[in-house]
This record gives sequence, structure tokens and C-alpha cells, in this order.
Amino acid sequence: MKVSLINIGDELLIGQVVNTNATWMSQQLIAAGMDVEKVYTISDNRTDIEDTLQQAMLCSNAVIITGGLGPTKDDITKKTLCDFFDSDFVEDKQTFDIISAIFEKRGYPMTDTNRQQALVPRCCTVLLNKRGTAPGMWFEKDGKVIVSLPGVPFEMKYLIDEEVIPRMVKYFNVGCILNKNILFQGIGESFLSDRIEQWELSLPKYIKLAYLPKAGLVRLRLTARGNDGDKNDMLAGIDTAVAELYKIVGDYIVGEDMETLAEVVADKMIRKLKTLSVAESCSGGAIASSITSLAGASQYFKGSVVAYSNEIKEKILGVNVDTLLKYGAVSEETAREMAMGVMNTMDTDYAVATTGIAGPGGGTAEKPVGTVWIAVASKDEIHTQKMTFGDDRLRVIERTVNQALANLLKMINK
Amino acid sequence: MKVSLINIGDELLIGQVVNTNATWMSQQLIAAGMDVEKVYTISDNRTDIEDTLQQAMLCSNAVIITGGLGPTKDDITKKTLCDFFDSDFVEDKQTFDIISAIFEKRGYPMTDTNRQQALVPRCCTVLLNKRGTAPGMWFEKDGKVIVSLPGVPFEMKYLIDEEVIPRMVKYFNVGCILNKNILFQGIGESFLSDRIEQWELSLPKYIKLAYLPKAGLVRLRLTARGNDGDKNDMLAGIDTAVAELYKIVGDYIVGEDMETLAEVVADKMIRKLKTLSVAESCSGGAIASSITSLAGASQYFKGSVVAYSNEIKEKILGVNVDTLLKYGAVSEETAREMAMGVMNTMDTDYAVATTGIAGPGGGTAEKPVGTVWIAVASKDEIHTQKMTFGDDRLRVIERTVNQALANLLKMINK
Repeated sequence: MKVSLINIGDELLIGQVVNTNATWMSQQLIAAGMDVEKVYTISDNRTDIEDTLQQAMLCSNAVIITGGLGPTKDDITKKTLCDFFDSDFVEDKQTFDIISAIFEKRGYPMTDTNRQQALVPRCCTVLLNKRGTAPGMWFEKDGKVIVSLPGVPFEMKYLIDEEVIPRMVKYFNVGCILNKNILFQGIGESFLSDRIEQWELSLPKYIKLAYLPKAGLVRLRLTARGNDGDKNDMLAGIDTAVAELYKIVGDYIVGEDMETLAEVVADKMIRKLKTLSVAESCSGGAIASSITSLAGASQYFKGSVVAYSNEIKEKILGVNVDTLLKYGAVSEETAREMAMGVMNTMDTDYAVATTGIAGPGGGTAEKPVGTVWIAVASKDEIHTQKMTFGDDRLRVIERTVNQALANLLKMINK
Repeated sequence: MKVSLINIGDELLIGQVVNTNATWMSQQLIAAGMDVEKVYTISDNRTDIEDTLQQAMLCSNAVIITGGLGPTKDDITKKTLCDFFDSDFVEDKQTFDIISAIFEKRGYPMTDTNRQQALVPRCCTVLLNKRGTAPGMWFEKDGKVIVSLPGVPFEMKYLIDEEVIPRMVKYFNVGCILNKNILFQGIGESFLSDRIEQWELSLPKYIKLAYLPKAGLVRLRLTARGNDGDKNDMLAGIDTAVAELYKIVGDYIVGEDMETLAEVVADKMIRKLKTLSVAESCSGGAIASSITSLAGASQYFKGSVVAYSNEIKEKILGVNVDTLLKYGAVSEETAREMAMGVMNTMDTDYAVATTGIAGPGGGTAEKPVGTVWIAVASKDEIHTQKMTFGDDRLRVIERTVNQALANLLKMINK
């Protein structure tokens, strides 16, 4: 069962937007038991859309098209598809109602251009987009499926999860697919791969592996594929494989069936009824933001002080002025006092603090850009660590967040 | 002058790696005056490579292939290309010397597999890879150019900058391209499109438009294309078009040649030598994080208090306990006191505060999920606004960040 993706958009071709849609869609499709055959990124242009769709249909069972469905003039995908399938336009009542409701809620009048978004080719099945005004469209031709989705990630993801994958699994009788995700921290992809080489060779044939590294973490995905009747055997096979994996590299495993460290931290804190506060300098709010992006954060997270100036470190976090003068803002001592300060002020069980030089400016010979101190504190102990995270600002911030959460997790697990 | 890209690699098709190579290459090629026609992501497989190359050559003047040049068995691009051009292999002396030197430096013996990396099709021009063992290859056929490069970003980037672009600009005698980006806030893509319809029709033929909407913002890109000699006329044409645009929809324009509201805010604050502090409840650190993700933030940003519990709102931000009891945490009064509190505590010229229900829990009939109060304060005035941002947690947070920054910008611009 092969799927090809066609991502439409000049913003992709001129390099203004990274094609993360393709990455995300591939992950979801593969997890549901389908193979991604080719990804085409093309312009918002009738001939390109027609030619590419024809090529894609030759080598795949299904084609998913994203983008080119907005109300503006440069979006011509819908017209092209309507002609491609020799159809004409009809207004879709449910889509029209959704668009009306969105405009009513926002208090804007609905224009003719907006209303046109409710028009769909007569021959398609509408995939109701509950997150926006452009409907998804499902076409069938010669035993193949062609789906058109909006390019806005928030809308596309909803339609892939809720509509496209369930329908495709049924239409193509994909069978039984089981996924198990194991999250590793503190070991690189190639080292992990070396350590588990023998284990990998001993896996049952129906289990396939994928390494999904992301900012200091490695997610290892085990995918079992078979017939619906084999489900229990496949479940047992995965359980055995995972148990073996713990024996070999259990020290690096920080979670299962979660995607981020923040999820693992939340899970542990909530179960143990503990509370957390954060003091951030170089991470600039990114730790708080990654924690609060998950629902239920208020059950354990009290707050963060983003102390971007020394004045705030002193005044709100109670860092000693002598510490700042003697050791500097980027130092073990400052990190330690920030963590203790926020833990006391916010009265929490645990605290995390970061201070460093995210760059590109501010580096010195002694403390180059990328130098970061991380402190993690509980009522019983305090742990500090110095890291050097390279010279790319966003990478430094991202790696600081991951290291801080990993260190916190180690302390919670003690 | 049209270029297509073929990125080879299973790691791209299974969503393990985001195709940032394509993004980067597109940026460089466009800046050099070339159009990127299509991007193909394909598997490491002879038939796919041959078919895709043939398709790409039909619609482009040049094709750049990345990936599939490593020494391992699954890398078969070089053999496929050698056959495709009816050539045979010869050893390239300079590449052999580079490979030898790399192995000597690392202290490893050079194997036969490694030595094979110095073999190239006789008919190609070798693009010397000074950063790795796989050489770049330049082929010419029927007036078209086909280039094969290693997929490792560090090596690919060197070859694109130093070899591919200079050679292509010369070979194809490329002209002039100019881009101008205008950032809008507070107007949807379709409304904007309706408002500027006449303006769009009156644009010179050489200017093309693209709408790039992103989380409450719309970026409008004007692209002018012509000969090198027409550059001044094209610059004047863009200036005229932009001046006209300001007359029609200037109220919604928040910046030029920037991508995000945070960039526009930073630019204004730094120019006006003003300082900012933030108090965040429902945005949970995302405002601070978006501000500090940009280099130079410490020039105007003092810090943020993420007050996820009422206790912190009282204790650190000085919100009156009676206000919290009488109006609740999600109220105009609390937002106002949070903004005033953080502005006073951090001693800044401006402050922004958010309080709301990001969901999925916590909503009531009176204050449903998505209800957000935003306050913006200066020494002279305070502005509050109530928004309803729907029921998706991450969307609520993202839209809160954008609305808060937009409101701040309006106050700064007064």
C-alpha cells in the first residue's frame, strides 16, 4: 500500500517555509501501516498539479495533496481537481455551515470569496474540516484514492488523523499495525544502534524499527505489521522485544509511548503529587512554554521567572549581588541560587534553573557562546551541570530545555 | 531558468529527517535568480532515480540531486547516473587524494569501499568536495545540467555555494530577481485579497504576489523578475506598488521584510530604547519564548513572570487577593493588575499580561475554554481586550501570543 504526497506551495519552493507537513504526514502514514513512495513539492499551477498527479498515480495506490485550497487567487488546486475528475462544482451544505459559524463567531461578514470555499467537485466525498474554512476532499478513480487537504498544519493534521487515515486503512484493508515508542535520552542514534545490533537481528520478521532523533532525544519506534487475526501474537512479540531492550539499554530509557520529555516529566510529577517551579535565563521561557503546552500542566506547575536581566535575578529570584559580581550571571553559583530562589519563592517541591549564553553575541574566551549552566533542586539536594551547546541560538535554547528536563527527570526518579 | 531538486533518502520518506536541505538550497538558488520548479523526495532505488530524473529534465533546465553517494551498499545513485549517461567509471585523482588525506588524518586504513568513492563517470566534471569523501558531479546533456551532490548538509552547502551556483549562473546567463515582504495583522487572507483586488490587477506584469498566512498574520510577498539591466526599474516598480498598498490597507501593515510580529516588536523597542516585561498565565511562557528566540532580545526585554497559580499572581505580581476572589483569575481586572504588577516590579516602559483558559479543562458557561484577557500597559495608559480563541490548546496559546504582541505594537506606534 503505497502513498505519494504532493505538497503545493510557492512558499515551499522558495525556501520560506520548511516542509514539515511532509515529515509529519510520513510519520503518521507509516505508523498506520502505509509506505510513502514519493514526495513532490510543486508550484500552485494548473499544469504542474495535473502532471504531478498523473505521475504520482502511476507509482502509488493513493495520493495526498496538501495546499492550494485557500480563498485567494493563487490557489487553484480545487478547480484543477474538479476538471481532472471531469466534475462540476456544488455547494457543500455542511462546509457552508462551518464557514458561516466561523465568520459569525468572529463577527465578520462573509464575502463571496469566502462562500466559494464551500464549493466542492460533485464527485468527491467531503472530509469535513472542523478547524477551518477549506474542506478536505476524497476522490476515487480506477481503484486509487486521491485526497486534497488544506496546507495549514493545524487543519491538515486534524483531517489526516480523523478522516484520511481511518478511511484509507479501511479502503485498502491495511491490516493490523501496532506501534510502540521508546524514548531515549543521553545516547546518540548511532551509539544506540550499535548497542542494540544483536537485539535488532533477533527481532521477529514482522517488527520493523525506525529511529526518530530529535534535539538530544532518540525515539525508537517498533512497528509490527500483520493480519488482524495475528494481533495477540504481535502484541506478545512487541512486549518481549521491549523487555529485552530494557535489559540492554534500560538506563537510557526515559519513557514509553510519549513523544517529548515534557510529557514524561508531567506524567511523573502528577502521579507523585509534586510541584515544580522554573527560573530561566538563557532558555528565555522555553522550559515554561514546553511544560504549559501540555494540558493539565497546572496540576503540578506553579510558574516560572524568566530573568533576562541581572536586576530581575537579584530582585525576584534573590540571587546574591556578590555572586553575580564574583562569578558572573553564567556560573554554577548563579544557577544554583536561581533554582533555590524560585523554589523558595514559589514554594515548590522541585525547581529547575538555566543560565547561559545563547548567542550569537555575549561569548568570551572563557565562556563561549553555547555555555549553559543547569541547576535542578529538590528539598533534599541540588544538582548542577555545565554544558556547551554550540553556536546556533535556537539549538542552544532547545538543547537547554531538553537537558534541564532530563536532569529533572533523573532527580524525580531517584 | 528552472531548477528541480531530487532529494534521495529513505530517512526523508519515513519522516525521520526533515528535508531542510531542500529549503536551504531553494533559498540559495532563488537568491541567485533561479526558479525552483519542483522538489522530488524519493527512495534510494535505481528505477525511481531514473524515472524521476527523466521527469525532472522535462520541466527544468537543471536538476540537482542530493544523497545516495555514501560508501554503503544502499547508495546506488552514482552507478545509476553512470549508466544514465552511457558512461564508464574512472578514478579521479584529486578526489582520491582528498579521501587518502581524510583517512590518514583520522588514523584509519582506507578500504576498497572507501577507494571506490574516488570513481566517477568519465563524462562528468568533478566538483571537488573539500569537506568529505563523496565528490560532486556535473553532467551536461542536451543543453541541460544535472548535478549530483552528497546529502550531508555540511558538504552539500559547501558545493552549492562554491561550485554549483557560480557555474550555473554563468552557464545559464541568469537575470535579476527582487523580493519584498509586507506583514499584515488583524486582517484575514481573504479580506486582504478582496481589498487589494484592483491594486493587484494594476501591478506591472513582472511582479508576482504570494500570500503566506501564519497564525493570525498574513505575509504578502511581491516578487519582481527581469534582466540585470532592468534592476532599477524593477526596484522603482516595487516601491510604487508598496506605496499604493499602504494607501489602501496601511492600517493593517505591521512590518516589512520581517517574518514575525516578535521581530517587528524587537525592531521598534530597540530603536525607541524602550524596555518590556511580561506576565503570563495562559500563554505559559510562550510570549517570553517568542521574544527571546531572537538574538538581541536582552537589549529591551527584562523578563517574564509565568504565573500559573493564583498564589504566584498575588505574591510576585502583586495582584490583589480581592480582585482574584471577586472577578476570578480570568478577568479584565486581573489582567490589568498583572500588567501593572510586572511593569512596576521589573521597572519597564511597557508590559504585557495574559490570563485565560487554554483548555481542554477549566471552561465554564460564562468563561468557556478559549476565553483570554490581554492587557498592554505603558507608563501613560493601559489597554485591555477580551478574546475567544476556540478550543484547541496550542492554537489558543499561539493566538494569544500574536494578539498580545499586536496590541503591544499598536501602543508602541502611537
